[in-house]
Amino acid sequence: MQTDQLLKGIGAAPGLAIGRAVWWRKERPEFTVQTVENPEHEVTRLKQAVEQAQEQISRLRETAAERMGESEAAVFDAHLAFLSDPAYTGEMERRIRDEAKNAEAICATVTQEMSDMLAALPDEYMQARADDIRDVGDRLLLILTGRQPFDPSLLEPGSVVVAEELTPSDTAQFPQGIAGMITARGSKTAHAAIMARTLGIPAVLGLGKALDQIQDGDTLILDGTTGEVTRNPAPQAEQAAREEMRRQRERREQALAAAKEDARTADGKRIQVFANIGSLNDIELALQSGAEGVGLFRTEFLYLENDHWPTEEEQYEAYRRVLEAFNPNPVIIRTLDIGGDKDLPYADLPKEENPFLGHRAIRFCFSHPEIFKTQLRALLRASVHGTLWIMFPMIENVSEIRQAKELLAECRAELVNEGVQVAETIPVGIMIEVPAAAVTADLLAPEVDFMSIGTNDLTQYTLAADRGNEQVAHLYDAAHPAVLRLVRQTCLAGKKAGIPVGMCGELAGDTNMTEILVGLGLDELSMSAGAIPEVKARIRSVQTDAAEAKSERALAQSDPDAVRRIAQE
Amino acid sequence: MQTDQLLKGIGAAPGLAIGRAVWWRKERPEFTVQTVENPEHEVTRLKQAVEQAQEQISRLRETAAERMGESEAAVFDAHLAFLSDPAYTGEMERRIRDEAKNAEAICATVTQEMSDMLAALPDEYMQARADDIRDVGDRLLLILTGRQPFDPSLLEPGSVVVAEELTPSDTAQFPQGIAGMITARGSKTAHAAIMARTLGIPAVLGLGKALDQIQDGDTLILDGTTGEVTRNPAPQAEQAAREEMRRQRERREQALAAAKEDARTADGKRIQVFANIGSLNDIELALQSGAEGVGLFRTEFLYLENDHWPTEEEQYEAYRRVLEAFNPNPVIIRTLDIGGDKDLPYADLPKEENPFLGHRAIRFCFSHPEIFKTQLRALLRASVHGTLWIMFPMIENVSEIRQAKELLAECRAELVNEGVQVAETIPVGIMIEVPAAAVTADLLAPEVDFMSIGTNDLTQYTLAADRGNEQVAHLYDAAHPAVLRLVRQTCLAGKKAGIPVGMCGELAGDTNMTEILVGLGLDELSMSAGAIPEVKARIRSVQTDAAEAKSERALAQSDPDAVRRIAQE
Repeated sequence: MQTDQLLKGIGAAPGLAIGRAVWWRKERPEFTVQTVENPEHEVTRLKQAVEQAQEQISRLRETAAERMGESEAAVFDAHLAFLSDPAYTGEMERRIRDEAKNAEAICATVTQEMSDMLAALPDEYMQARADDIRDVGDRLLLILTGRQPFDPSLLEPGSVVVAEELTPSDTAQFPQGIAGMITARGSKTAHAAIMARTLGIPAVLGLGKALDQIQDGDTLILDGTTGEVTRNPAPQAEQAAREEMRRQRERREQALAAAKEDARTADGKRIQVFANIGSLNDIELALQSGAEGVGLFRTEFLYLENDHWPTEEEQYEAYRRVLEAFNPNPVIIRTLDIGGDKDLPYADLPKEENPFLGHRAIRFCFSHPEIFKTQLRALLRASVHGTLWIMFPMIENVSEIRQAKELLAECRAELVNEGVQVAETIPVGIMIEVPAAAVTADLLAPEVDFMSIGTNDLTQYTLAADRGNEQVAHLYDAAHPAVLRLVRQTCLAGKKAGIPVGMCGELAGDTNMTEILVGLGLDELSMSAGAIPEVKARIRSVQTDAAEAKSERALAQSDPDAVRRIAQE
Repeated sequence: MQTDQLLKGIGAAPGLAIGRAVWWRKERPEFTVQTVENPEHEVTRLKQAVEQAQEQISRLRETAAERMGESEAAVFDAHLAFLSDPAYTGEMERRIRDEAKNAEAICATVTQEMSDMLAALPDEYMQARADDIRDVGDRLLLILTGRQPFDPSLLEPGSVVVAEELTPSDTAQFPQGIAGMITARGSKTAHAAIMARTLGIPAVLGLGKALDQIQDGDTLILDGTTGEVTRNPAPQAEQAAREEMRRQRERREQALAAAKEDARTADGKRIQVFANIGSLNDIELALQSGAEGVGLFRTEFLYLENDHWPTEEEQYEAYRRVLEAFNPNPVIIRTLDIGGDKDLPYADLPKEENPFLGHRAIRFCFSHPEIFKTQLRALLRASVHGTLWIMFPMIENVSEIRQAKELLAECRAELVNEGVQVAETIPVGIMIEVPAAAVTADLLAPEVDFMSIGTNDLTQYTLAADRGNEQVAHLYDAAHPAVLRLVRQTCLAGKKAGIPVGMCGELAGDTNMTEILVGLGLDELSMSAGAIPEVKARIRSVQTDAAEAKSERALAQSDPDAVRRIAQE
């Protein structure tokens, strides 16, 4: 047996793992095309299969929502929608009757036709729907042919899942205790990568054909940070890896033990560490992880989960719950950030050629004041239940800030008139995510009570690289010196205006970058709950003046790789 | 008769015009649905109509190419493609035979079905194709029913064209001497607006229902800068407008008379004024207008006009011609800037969710080195025929510059090996259009011989506003202080590195901004040929120190409107 064989892929979810390889095999359901005497019988079989598929998918949806949150679970709504679409399952019934063929044959044909049609459309969204319908069609065929899908119970704790590709349906079924996952296809921005990071499972994707060499039972070491996979490591290599994992675990445990304490640098500078939250389900983990507040409460889930614009009452309830949970710590709630890339069935948002450069977030809210004011009223009503800070997204000039504040004042006046209680002081801030806002932060800062840098969008605009586009994934890196300079510029503007500056993009939770971020002058870092303990631990090891010197050097580098090398010194 | 009635629309192509209103009426071809005895007769009628339509469209294409250039003419290729598409005209023939109906009825139905289908796709590109197919279908129906389309010869010199909406088919037929155009629909970024600017015809679009009040023969004053239209002006208003037009004409004539002289500020600072060129057809006008070189030669036309990747020989010929035409003045040729928003029939570029943030320009070239090297070889071969400067688009870090220069050196070595002559020195520069490049211009400048700021892209990235998206058109303005600050930063970096900095976006040709641009420290401005004389005239009136003071004030403004007010002081 060849030992110590090194395969190189894309590090897609960080962490070190050792485990036994288990292939996630996808069976192709086999069947023959048959002419049937009694088409109604086939229609009945189809209907039963559709019902069973609906049950399976609903269960998957539930599990996914619990384990990964509503936005990750939404993909299953698309699956369910296909099952009740007359153009899909209705068409199958019609064709079974017309052509008097067995349900399997018709299901395969109709699925193929629809997915071909969707895949041919020059649009990534539709192409993703083509994947979805294939997923649904495969499920129906497995049920019709009485075959079993891959049984996730084969995955003992400590398994490393090996697969050509993993769909959301697949990852939603992962049992607890999976050590890691590796796939032939996919990239950092693939859905599987996002899921792996959410679940905290180290992952290496995009290994290509090299994956075929791996067999069930092989021992694998994978490093989700560097993208390296070692197949059947020599004993001393395995030993070293276990040693490193133990050290990492110890560090994590120490970090976790101190998670609920404040984070101060070695020389005593307090940095607030907050959590990013995408739904009410995230509150508990955030509190357990030591979040000192919420740096970014995304309100989109209220809009994506519903079949109607969420009412003031529905929103009020959600905001009240998060405010109460963190009271008296601050909760920064960002107003609606939605645009042409989202598909709200009840909204009919026009598709745009470049939705990230389009009519979204505050721009959308200004042109739909009734929707915006419903949210502002709900926020103001909830403000008495804790410490609310309101944050507006996609701001790029002073008049937008004034317009948003005017609408807020209008809502306040209305509520006061109606005799509703509203908190006396509610800090109002803005996201710094459009490059123009960072470049003119000195002009914007005097108009607001705080600023928070959204590095995900700021990076994609500053580098002109869509972070969902695998073709430019190699360019997308928030550690680019241009992004760091804009961060620095924003911090200086905040300091001059006497207001705090935070960061709520993914960069804030990148422990390798913590020292540089402190050096750039950030007052608050907000991140996924999971990253909080280790970021706090890092902060405690930082000397402010050394961090400043390091960040100065980082700003003079010519590319992100050079910055990252300095960061790891 | 009501006089001096003021209508307000969107100023879409600048200039003042007075003229008589002529409605561009579009006849709806009328017909009845008939069952026919001899379907073959109808098929023959259809085929003849298709042939006639092909002739008409080919003529339109030719006129458009001559008057507006190849890229404007390309829309007619789409029309021609539909006429030879079996899914369109082939389907009509089939249905005439199947259903035994008259050609008109089938043509109308099939056109409607196809355009509905295209319009339903969630994609702007496809929706534009839906408009195209309606345009083609209307043409076929007019021919089949023996009706005449609107006769452009009704437009005497001095007419103001009034229309609900104008398609490219329409504007391509404008005779010489049209005074202006106004429409109910459309915006600054509509195709009609671009055409009007190319033709130099003042235009006000988006007048909405107000347009219905205008009758054939009304006297109209329109101001394509402010968007104001005065219907039947009082004699003194008409007099004043004519006076203003006379002054503008005089200024233009004076500017034109001095167009071929250098442009120096009143205190003697030389600013080079170059032309942007999109095809070989633009050379003549650029020379006549006083271009002292080419600041941006776009090479995309070579790729868009062809049915194959243009060969080295084809490219060499084009580059040689432009270099010879301007010799010994410099010609800055930009390497290929293409991506997922362009539809090259021979290339199969994957559609992207946000093509402007995608795999385009230098990114595409790096992943297609064979295509890139063909262009570089053609450029190097052409370099002996004049003064070639090579410019790389979408650069955002130092390693991209080095990679591009290495490929260039490789091509040079190959050619020298083959015994081909190549110019000794060829300055190599970069576009500054990604915000990251402007923010780190100090790091990039030492690696290159010149920089040129592409304000169109720089603005859309800096403001996160797609300039083709009407919904965010109100945000897209290159006079935003953030954009000007990035321009300033780039100029300073250029000065420090001792290299010239130019500008080749639309802002460079905006005469209202000339003083501020000089104040920001630009060495060269490159623009559409038409703008050159007046920009030169403006430069001559500028005092450098006053311009610097003005630009300093502009940088401190909070929005583009405030900047523009300062600019016009």
